[in-house]
Amino acid sequence: MKIAQFSAFGKPDEVIRCVDVDDVGAPGPDEAVIDVLAFPINPADLLTIEGRYALRPPLPARLGAECVGRVIARGRDVRGLVEGDLVIPLDRDNWVQRKKVKAAQLVKVPSNVDPLQLAMLKVNPPTAHLMMTKYVKLQPGEWLIQDAANSGVGHCLIQIAKAAGIRSVNVVRRDGLADELKALGGDVVAVDGPDLGERVRAATNGAAIRLAIDAVGGEQIVRLGDCLTEEAVIVNYGLLSGENPQLTGHQTVFKRLWLTGFWLMPTLQRMAPAEIQEMYAMLAGRIAGGSLRVPVEATYPIEQIAQAVAQANAYRRTGKVLVTPNGPLG
Amino acid sequence: MKIAQFSAFGKPDEVIRCVDVDDVGAPGPDEAVIDVLAFPINPADLLTIEGRYALRPPLPARLGAECVGRVIARGRDVRGLVEGDLVIPLDRDNWVQRKKVKAAQLVKVPSNVDPLQLAMLKVNPPTAHLMMTKYVKLQPGEWLIQDAANSGVGHCLIQIAKAAGIRSVNVVRRDGLADELKALGGDVVAVDGPDLGERVRAATNGAAIRLAIDAVGGEQIVRLGDCLTEEAVIVNYGLLSGENPQLTGHQTVFKRLWLTGFWLMPTLQRMAPAEIQEMYAMLAGRIAGGSLRVPVEATYPIEQIAQAVAQANAYRRTGKVLVTPNGPLG
Repeated sequence: MKIAQFSAFGKPDEVIRCVDVDDVGAPGPDEAVIDVLAFPINPADLLTIEGRYALRPPLPARLGAECVGRVIARGRDVRGLVEGDLVIPLDRDNWVQRKKVKAAQLVKVPSNVDPLQLAMLKVNPPTAHLMMTKYVKLQPGEWLIQDAANSGVGHCLIQIAKAAGIRSVNVVRRDGLADELKALGGDVVAVDGPDLGERVRAATNGAAIRLAIDAVGGEQIVRLGDCLTEEAVIVNYGLLSGENPQLTGHQTVFKRLWLTGFWLMPTLQRMAPAEIQEMYAMLAGRIAGGSLRVPVEATYPIEQIAQAVAQANAYRRTGKVLVTPNGPLG
Repeated sequence: MKIAQFSAFGKPDEVIRCVDVDDVGAPGPDEAVIDVLAFPINPADLLTIEGRYALRPPLPARLGAECVGRVIARGRDVRGLVEGDLVIPLDRDNWVQRKKVKAAQLVKVPSNVDPLQLAMLKVNPPTAHLMMTKYVKLQPGEWLIQDAANSGVGHCLIQIAKAAGIRSVNVVRRDGLADELKALGGDVVAVDGPDLGERVRAATNGAAIRLAIDAVGGEQIVRLGDCLTEEAVIVNYGLLSGENPQLTGHQTVFKRLWLTGFWLMPTLQRMAPAEIQEMYAMLAGRIAGGSLRVPVEATYPIEQIAQAVAQANAYRRTGKVLVTPNGPLG
């Protein structure tokens, strides 16, 4: 079987390789074996290859935060899963053709849904859902604001907010995205700039915005802070600017804003298994119902992992890049 | 009677004046008249004169966040106060010889305590007390860390933490302060530097520090963050560096630190009157008992307000500068 791995930290498309390894063998009593149907290439994967992610694995290393797979064998003690079921694994190292997983680490997902979308279910949708719900209890009709609104998480957040009746201000860094983001359900789309606060107040009739979601860092957070009401929360989950997340002294003391960050992994680790299953069932239901969808730009076979990674690392993509390691889907 | 006022924003000792105004007259039914015995010159007063504080008063303006006064007359409906009582007013504009105040805005304080210390009771002690207790429920034996440890709030925090059994790491920007801060009750005194985190871990045996108090801003907060455990809170209350409070992306996402700010005024406005009285009674009791004391560097008559302000604005003071507008005390 084939897997993607890297033996040195470096430029992702230069160090990632598709290599042959031994098959996974038969499942233990509490395990299942799955064929990986598709996995996306996420920013965190690219950071991991560059050695800039919080997790710096020993080399050579497999990687991949998420995938969707089909159960092809299961151990005698496994309940609730049968051969043919589609699943998403909660563990890592998903850039493989096949893997053996503890059944407790598998979340069953509907079989009647586009598997490319299911391959992107594990990370971005719950990231958007949890950032929207965990810090501030927004009421229907209230506003949130996010930057990097054209990212994978950004698209999910627009759609998840819309479904909850929460209105969204979506900050982007270039013109030409308003139609697409409004079609997804975004209420306001604003190009970033020094007068962002004024424009957002005008566009929202001066609404008191209590939650901001940021993936840029640096002074972008100050400009988001200008849009917020006193004691609002800013949740940072990325650092596209490469600069330290920051607030002004006026924003910390006189507005008493809160700045913190979100990371999915420890959040999931603290949730009960039933709670995790329920959340993913809800989000998979949104995908099935058509109210949650992430655009796909390209799919590649695993043999072309380097090209796939290069495309995923390019600026101005129109959607996610995925790999289908067991052949094209659908 | 004499008051201090300024008619233009500018360099504090150049624009502040002692001027004569009409006396306050007799108290209304729910008012008291007090002679101001002493008021301190605080950083927020200097910022107000410079026009850099959140409150930018119309000019010419009185100012002064705090004082201690003696009741010299009271209206017929005033209960719980008699002539001769010492009080601290919760309202502003305290740089005056005499003022008329709603009795509900007066907190009675003990008469057997150094009035210079009582003049500094309103702002710094509750700022330290509330920052220590409002965000994280520290247990006796736990640690907190603060910078600007040699400031007025810093001195209060050391003593209030000590009294609560909380251990303190006190970060300063120059050598030579350790003996003084340890004598106040500080457990560790550390001079700031790039390896602050390492030195603090060594000095605390790797204690999990959950609360940091910052008055510096900028990258000082990143270095405090290096000393903290995951999901710790950093409370900013000043901006001595003049630079934006900031965290690294690692600290927001992977450590999930929280950064916010504290401002006494809105915090008091949300407390019940009885809760405020109780807090000040507790803190005044600490002053009376000798466990809470702020060093005094100099006192001036109100006619020399400009010299007093100049000295308060100087670097490397050894204590607070106060004014005794009705003549020297004690």
